[in-house]
Amino acid sequence: MKKLDVVALCGSLRRASLNRQAIRLAQEVAPAHMAIEELDWRAVPVLDADELAHGFPAPVAALRTRVRAADAVLIATPEYNFSIPGGLKNVIDWLSRGEDQPLDGKPVAIVSASPGPLGGARVQYDLRKVLLFVNAMPLVKPEVFIGGAAGKFDAPTGACTDATTRDFVTRQMAAFADWIAGVQRMRGSAAAQSCPSQQASAARATNEQETPWHSPHPTVAPRASRTSTKTARPRSSTPAWARTSRRA
Amino acid sequence: MKKLDVVALCGSLRRASLNRQAIRLAQEVAPAHMAIEELDWRAVPVLDADELAHGFPAPVAALRTRVRAADAVLIATPEYNFSIPGGLKNVIDWLSRGEDQPLDGKPVAIVSASPGPLGGARVQYDLRKVLLFVNAMPLVKPEVFIGGAAGKFDAPTGACTDATTRDFVTRQMAAFADWIAGVQRMRGSAAAQSCPSQQASAARATNEQETPWHSPHPTVAPRASRTSTKTARPRSSTPAWARTSRRA
Amino acid sequence: MKKLDVVALCGSLRRASLNRQAIRLAQEVAPAHMAIEELDWRAVPVLDADELAHGFPAPVAALRTRVRAADAVLIATPEYNFSIPGGLKNVIDWLSRGEDQPLDGKPVAIVSASPGPLGGARVQYDLRKVLLFVNAMPLVKPEVFIGGAAGKFDAPTGACTDATTRDFVTRQMAAFADWIAGVQRMRGSAAAQSCPSQQASAARATNEQETPWHSPHPTVAPRASRTSTKTARPRSSTPAWARTSRRA
Amino acid sequence: MKKLDVVALCGSLRRASLNRQAIRLAQEVAPAHMAIEELDWRAVPVLDADELAHGFPAPVAALRTRVRAADAVLIATPEYNFSIPGGLKNVIDWLSRGEDQPLDGKPVAIVSASPGPLGGARVQYDLRKVLLFVNAMPLVKPEVFIGGAAGKFDAPTGACTDATTRDFVTRQMAAFADWIAGVQRMRGSAAAQSCPSQQASAARATNEQETPWHSPHPTVAPRASRTSTKTARPRSSTPAWARTSRRA
Repeated sequence: MKKLDVVALCGSLRRASLNRQAIRLAQEVAPAHMAIEELDWRAVPVLDADELAHGFPAPVAALRTRVRAADAVLIATPEYNFSIPGGLKNVIDWLSRGEDQPLDGKPVAIVSASPGPLGGARVQYDLRKVLLFVNAMPLVKPEVFIGGAAGKFDAPTGACTDATTRDFVTRQMAAFADWIAGVQRMRGSAAAQSCPSQQASAARATNEQETPWHSPHPTVAPRASRTSTKTARPRSSTPAWARTSRRA
Repeated sequence: MKKLDVVALCGSLRRASLNRQAIRLAQEVAPAHMAIEELDWRAVPVLDADELAHGFPAPVAALRTRVRAADAVLIATPEYNFSIPGGLKNVIDWLSRGEDQPLDGKPVAIVSASPGPLGGARVQYDLRKVLLFVNAMPLVKPEVFIGGAAGKFDAPTGACTDATTRDFVTRQMAAFADWIAGVQRMRGSAAAQSCPSQQASAARATNEQETPWHSPHPTVAPRASRTSTKTARPRSSTPAWARTSRRA
Repeated sequence: MKKLDVVALCGSLRRASLNRQAIRLAQEVAPAHMAIEELDWRAVPVLDADELAHGFPAPVAALRTRVRAADAVLIATPEYNFSIPGGLKNVIDWLSRGEDQPLDGKPVAIVSASPGPLGGARVQYDLRKVLLFVNAMPLVKPEVFIGGAAGKFDAPTGACTDATTRDFVTRQMAAFADWIAGVQRMRGSAAAQSCPSQQASAARATNEQETPWHSPHPTVAPRASRTSTKTARPRSSTPAWARTSRRA
Repeated sequence: MKKLDVVALCGSLRRASLNRQAIRLAQEVAPAHMAIEELDWRAVPVLDADELAHGFPAPVAALRTRVRAADAVLIATPEYNFSIPGGLKNVIDWLSRGEDQPLDGKPVAIVSASPGPLGGARVQYDLRKVLLFVNAMPLVKPEVFIGGAAGKFDAPTGACTDATTRDFVTRQMAAFADWIAGVQRMRGSAAAQSCPSQQASAARATNEQETPWHSPHPTVAPRASRTSTKTARPRSSTPAWARTSRRA
């Protein structure tokens, strides 16, 4: 059986990040048929639409290609100021741009670790909202919040020393493997219909964000933009989707 | 082919609610193999855990039974104070209580209509977060926000007079039918694993909410609660889930 | 010195609610010049705009009058399904309707208690967003989340048995008294300007919600409303409400 | 009268950003006694706690000093993937670190512009939640969402060509000036009490985020962390605050 190819993104750049240790734990306890590779996004610059106009920077293009090729994505992140660390959000912003979006329809699992007591109880919901925009398929449960994490990993080695944490992540990775299989079953025969929004996401990336865009009739912006999106690609088979995700 | 049985909840009790009119539109434009029945929740009282201790009130029990039997749920709601109308949230609170939760793993589609310009751009994300708790499976896209709705439905008859709105809801219902089929495919052989959280949800309903709960060691409440949850029901087959969705 | 008149709303109707016990604790440890009275909202019906058209039901009218007269509001609430209990949200929905809104510019303190470990870490932010809509002035810090609350109050008497919880609520009430004084200083000479949105709040309550509202040009509703806003401020003519806090 | 010193942050790095044009408009229509200076954060790197351990990078230190010196902050931002652009969030993450936090108690006004129809209706609430963490004082109303913005500014010159948008931003800047004065009145005599959470914020920056932190008793992490936070700084005069913002 071909192994499930999961890529992991750590929300912190700190070498000894508790969330990086959580990824290591996930690698250790994942089912035998799942391989988890952490991706290094340190070289990803802050998104600048002027640069994007010249194409994706090399580190971004490489990241997009690798994520697109993966079966699923694991995100392990701290909570910064009640929400998503800017650096991680910036990576997702890059992934959400352009066509053939890497996260579209992709199964995602989320874990958060923090030295504090809540373990990231707030960041995970903001992250789920963002993943909604790019039409990812986040695993619902089990949710895993690793609070007091500094006491649950061995500082020098990064090994998890807490049986409960180990147990939870083990269960989450097992549920994630089932979820990935379920999403693949779901998309199987009717992928086009059941995940219709790669086009829609692309449309939104064009319309809602900062790319300059001119309409002769600003008050009908969404419609105009949908139209142009539709004509922008040979998607006449299902142009409908490119015109959705809009206020009627 | 058996028709898809969809029940609809309107977020407003107003007889001439724009969202009720949106449900009528959905009924009108739904695919031939989908039947949508609006459920009247007017008789549902405000949740009082003291009364719940004596069992579900009759209108709540009936609503739970009907929702549980349905293939999917359509929610059409206004936005009150940037979030979910209290009455609708109260209905969801009732549905989330107890065992065998009606919304667990249930496909859900959301539409919001308002006289104002945003069409409920804020309420839908709060509603998605709440649906996450009960492990529902909300359709991601197309999102439909009906702004300026008072001008898009005929006041006397409630008929939709706006071609774009009609077109959007038609597409959303088509995507919803695909989504329902996709969720059924997903849950098919591996339902237990791919939707593991009916127990987890029940556990949370027990632990996170207002039911009194005693721990000999309050500082280890989560673990203690998981344990008691596990032993509280004959779920030894997969007690794991009842102990998840917890901070490790 | 006249005592600060604070009214308290408990998010749960349960007689032995942990959050009701938290209100009792606040009453016990509040500064000498602050009096806290819990308001009973059990008789408040679910909001129905058809009934509202005939005026506020008696229990709602009484609640609105009492809240309007108070110097500040304390909200103690559990978290239901990751968000605000429907019953409490329904009370806020009633308070947000009509003119002379009781919560406009009102200082508010929030505490949440739960038997689970997070103590309501999610509900407080949804509640703050809702309070933003009605232009209340919520105390920022200290935030108080009472997790494992069942072990921190004496079941028979409801007395708080946890020194840390007692200490936190004592500090929060002291900060709340300072906050109330600060908001009164802020609104003092320039109340009209520094809290410009009683009108805006009323407007949104009218507009974004379910009351039917007709525009000669629904697709340009936002602009039409904005334009009239500019001129409308002599707000005896309530249509002015249909036009503020709008997207430019 | 000394002019109010307002610094502006644009959420987009794009030279011709619609939000940069919104800042220009604010500069143009601000009251005579308010000066708005846009700060360039292009040189700010993605936050890496390992680098932070060696002190703030020069561009970050300069930004922190300038923001701390200002009377208030104006944020104009697009919405990326339903939330805050990663680059802007990263700037706020840097501002939130360490002691003497630049945003603590600082009045903030928010505007969002987008080519799409919603004008950033979702990003502003996430931004408000983040600002809550750092104890900023965001202006509540008027809220300004500039939808269809590409049609409301002159592309070559960046000048606002839409009378309604101009009118709204004019009103918002006037309300902002009142708000700044109100916050200064509020903080006046009782600043320490009415904005007690510079310490609390610093404590959270230490505890909730990624800085490694060791507790002998991980399950009582919050209490241990509060204690260590208290002893970490000569704040024994008001150690209370350093122990707040914590789950009791």
